[in-house]
Amino acid sequence: MKKILNDVEAVVDEMLEGMVAAHPDRLRRLKGTTVLVRKEAPVNGKVGIVSGGGSGHEPAHGGFVGEGMLDAAVAGEVFTSPTPDQIYEAIKAVHGGKGVLLIIKNYTGDVMNFEMAAEMAEIDGIKVRQVIVNDDVAVEDSSFTSGRRGIAGTVLVHKIAGALAANGASLEQVESVANKVIQNVKSMGMSLTPCTVPASGKPGFQLAENEIEIGTGIHGEPGVERTKILTAKELAEVLFQKVNNDLNLQEREEVAILVNGLGATPLMELYVLHYNLKALLDKKKLQVVDTIVGEWMTSLEMSGVSITILRLDDQLKTLLKQEADTVAFKR
Amino acid sequence: MKKILNDVEAVVDEMLEGMVAAHPDRLRRLKGTTVLVRKEAPVNGKVGIVSGGGSGHEPAHGGFVGEGMLDAAVAGEVFTSPTPDQIYEAIKAVHGGKGVLLIIKNYTGDVMNFEMAAEMAEIDGIKVRQVIVNDDVAVEDSSFTSGRRGIAGTVLVHKIAGALAANGASLEQVESVANKVIQNVKSMGMSLTPCTVPASGKPGFQLAENEIEIGTGIHGEPGVERTKILTAKELAEVLFQKVNNDLNLQEREEVAILVNGLGATPLMELYVLHYNLKALLDKKKLQVVDTIVGEWMTSLEMSGVSITILRLDDQLKTLLKQEADTVAFKR
Repeated sequence: MKKILNDVEAVVDEMLEGMVAAHPDRLRRLKGTTVLVRKEAPVNGKVGIVSGGGSGHEPAHGGFVGEGMLDAAVAGEVFTSPTPDQIYEAIKAVHGGKGVLLIIKNYTGDVMNFEMAAEMAEIDGIKVRQVIVNDDVAVEDSSFTSGRRGIAGTVLVHKIAGALAANGASLEQVESVANKVIQNVKSMGMSLTPCTVPASGKPGFQLAENEIEIGTGIHGEPGVERTKILTAKELAEVLFQKVNNDLNLQEREEVAILVNGLGATPLMELYVLHYNLKALLDKKKLQVVDTIVGEWMTSLEMSGVSITILRLDDQLKTLLKQEADTVAFKR
Repeated sequence: MKKILNDVEAVVDEMLEGMVAAHPDRLRRLKGTTVLVRKEAPVNGKVGIVSGGGSGHEPAHGGFVGEGMLDAAVAGEVFTSPTPDQIYEAIKAVHGGKGVLLIIKNYTGDVMNFEMAAEMAEIDGIKVRQVIVNDDVAVEDSSFTSGRRGIAGTVLVHKIAGALAANGASLEQVESVANKVIQNVKSMGMSLTPCTVPASGKPGFQLAENEIEIGTGIHGEPGVERTKILTAKELAEVLFQKVNNDLNLQEREEVAILVNGLGATPLMELYVLHYNLKALLDKKKLQVVDTIVGEWMTSLEMSGVSITILRLDDQLKTLLKQEADTVAFKR
């Protein structure tokens, strides 16, 4: 295993310290926890937004803490859910009197631990709501999931719910818009190579030299098919078709696109894929009003990509384009 | 070779089309060229800024085209200098009456071709100045270089020269501040794995399973030493010491830090390295006033990192922090 680290046990701790040391004007770490909060948290009169999950998906989730997105991100060990006590600390730290929304990716451990934390906070009299993101259309149920997995589409939930919260909306309104995004956002990924969890020291799966996997999860969970390597054009077709089977997009509908690198894929290849994807969207006469290309929800050094399509209405479009100012995501 | 592409001959073309298709509100491609310009170019009464070089370093350079940084980026084939005619088209397209500054990384082919383009433009009566970035302290001379190589520090030259140009300064003033950055910015990198140029199909060099290379260039040019893998702490020490040997930083001096991933290194590891680097800066009692962590000057899917330190004065600090709004870099 070749990685830049000291002690595999300390990797999350040193990462969090490194983030705070790099961005002390923006981020603060709650003492004795793995929680990063906005410097100014809690923001009075604003719904607090908390997300998080296993580490190894950076910039998710700590990179999205800031103006117009998250108030706190809770980091678990690599590919491991954070514990309820950590999430509970995050909720308390961001509660500005208007309640707290938890944005959870649909993995059994995350759902259980965030729910438990919500119950603990409610005993303290903090109003908490939860939304569960399940945008990955690749498979129903999976290694760590009942139902569909939550992947890169989660970033758009952060963005849009965060924008509405910044505008002073109520907890119910923020919860409602988050659920509207979840209903309208679908993703699908693929991998060319596996990744290695530091504490394990070995790749999570194997792929032959000329083999790729379609539908792999962001922790290396099995996808739908292993196949010989495809061209960018074929790949765009496979991913788009599966996503559109679910969204059933109609001519002239407005959409936002997110092309997400999984960690080791050069931006060059993401843009080549986007070029081929855009041709399909144009053929379908879709109106793409926002395109985001980069690394947002990664799987350590996995090579691969996911595409995400969000069906928009006027509200979602406005909130998506609204200003945001976090370490990793700015508009 | 596992990559997301169609035809290795078309990879730069499809990448550029993919970038413009993703960001049509910001970028425009000059017809029949590999030049990306700001949508609104030329900006009248502003010094135009052109950079570029071989492709494969994305987001450099096209990702830095926009408000407060570059007016145009010229893309060569992967790891190959763009030709003078392409650079000449870029200069003409961004000339807003106040002259054009070329920011060139110090590689023999780039220097020669940008110079030739400058001469062509001057025949047309366009005033052109050139600055040459040579921030890499690893080696004197190298595979493609006489003198030191230009690497990630180039991004800070873009940022600061771009800010001064946006403020309406003259060509001489913008050239002068770019040279001030160049004199005060030093970088050093290392690699854990090589990368593969698409047209070649094979990795550019080999490293054993437990081996890393210190001082590798961004095209895989040889560094100063191959060694068994180091800890993040050791790595931070090796890189910082070499950079500081050159900068000779004194207590309480103000600096900006750029920790740059080479393509396949997870953000987690960049932040772990930063945590260890920051401890050294603190020990030296340096005042870090700006820290930028991410992938800015990459080498396709090479795994590795470079650190860059820029010694600041009040002018550089203000310009570095000034607003910028490009596809890849925002402030």
